[in-house]
Amino acid sequence: MTDSLPEFLAHSLALEHEAAERYRELADIMENNLNPEVGAVFRDMARFSGRHHHEIKARVGAMVLPELKSWQYRWATPPEATDSLDIDFFMQPYNALRIARDNELRGYKYYRQIAREAADPEIKRLAEEFAQEERGHIAALDKWLAQAHRPSETWEKDPEPVEVTD
Amino acid sequence: MTDSLPEFLAHSLALEHEAAERYRELADIMENNLNPEVGAVFRDMARFSGRHHHEIKARVGAMVLPELKSWQYRWATPPEATDSLDIDFFMQPYNALRIARDNELRGYKYYRQIAREAADPEIKRLAEEFAQEERGHIAALDKWLAQAHRPSETWEKDPEPVEVTD
Repeated sequence: MTDSLPEFLAHSLALEHEAAERYRELADIMENNLNPEVGAVFRDMARFSGRHHHEIKARVGAMVLPELKSWQYRWATPPEATDSLDIDFFMQPYNALRIARDNELRGYKYYRQIAREAADPEIKRLAEEFAQEERGHIAALDKWLAQAHRPSETWEKDPEPVEVTD
Repeated sequence: MTDSLPEFLAHSLALEHEAAERYRELADIMENNLNPEVGAVFRDMARFSGRHHHEIKARVGAMVLPELKSWQYRWATPPEATDSLDIDFFMQPYNALRIARDNELRGYKYYRQIAREAADPEIKRLAEEFAQEERGHIAALDKWLAQAHRPSETWEKDPEPVEVTD
């Protein structure tokens, strides 16, 4: 469990850094696929994550942070994405938005669980603040998803996004 | 598609580097969970991947390689792993071996597809050689999996591993 402030901050830093990197990749893919509009959405998201990473870093200051395992912060990719040799070609805006949304939801759930379970009020407060930030990202992605064409022909299944609940 | 030697080598290098890093993490987790035997299996696998990475690097020499997207080489993790806040605690030998096997199988399929589709005979030859190497890793993991307790209580589903086919 994330039971110390350094551990919580290490997770948060890693999650934001990972998000910024993945959003930049998604933006590249969308721009290569001639979809500058969705590309611009991801550039914005990358900027938000980068800014948040910067703010958390300021909060960390001289604190020494623990080292994390990759599974604790890396984005999950659907098998459709990882099985494909030509991910750029197959990834349509809907798929890219869904990968982003699924991972923002994971981030949201992570922060919410910390906010509920942490004993330290400072961790509780920060986790709640970060959870609400993720919730905002999910809402933004949902707006774009509602307009995106669902490419069920190339990507085997695209079930409805899961509702955000506590 | 991987249609040039530099592209193929970039993929191979990235896959082996990723495998070595993930195997080291799995070894750490198993050792923390008081399972030095399975830990040692993963240390061996990390060494094999590291050695292979080194050999490919020698083949690359002064060649300039393209930059890859993370989705093209990163290991996939099951949702059970990525949703858990305390991955070290929940990951039992069976789960760790399955994560490894699923990703070795992805690697195998990738190399087999290249071996089938590449026009360049040098790419074809290397891809076939790398595919057989992955197949050997899968066989080794299967031996350990056959002895591992299936922890269906903590990890929701653990369906049978998929047979290796062409």
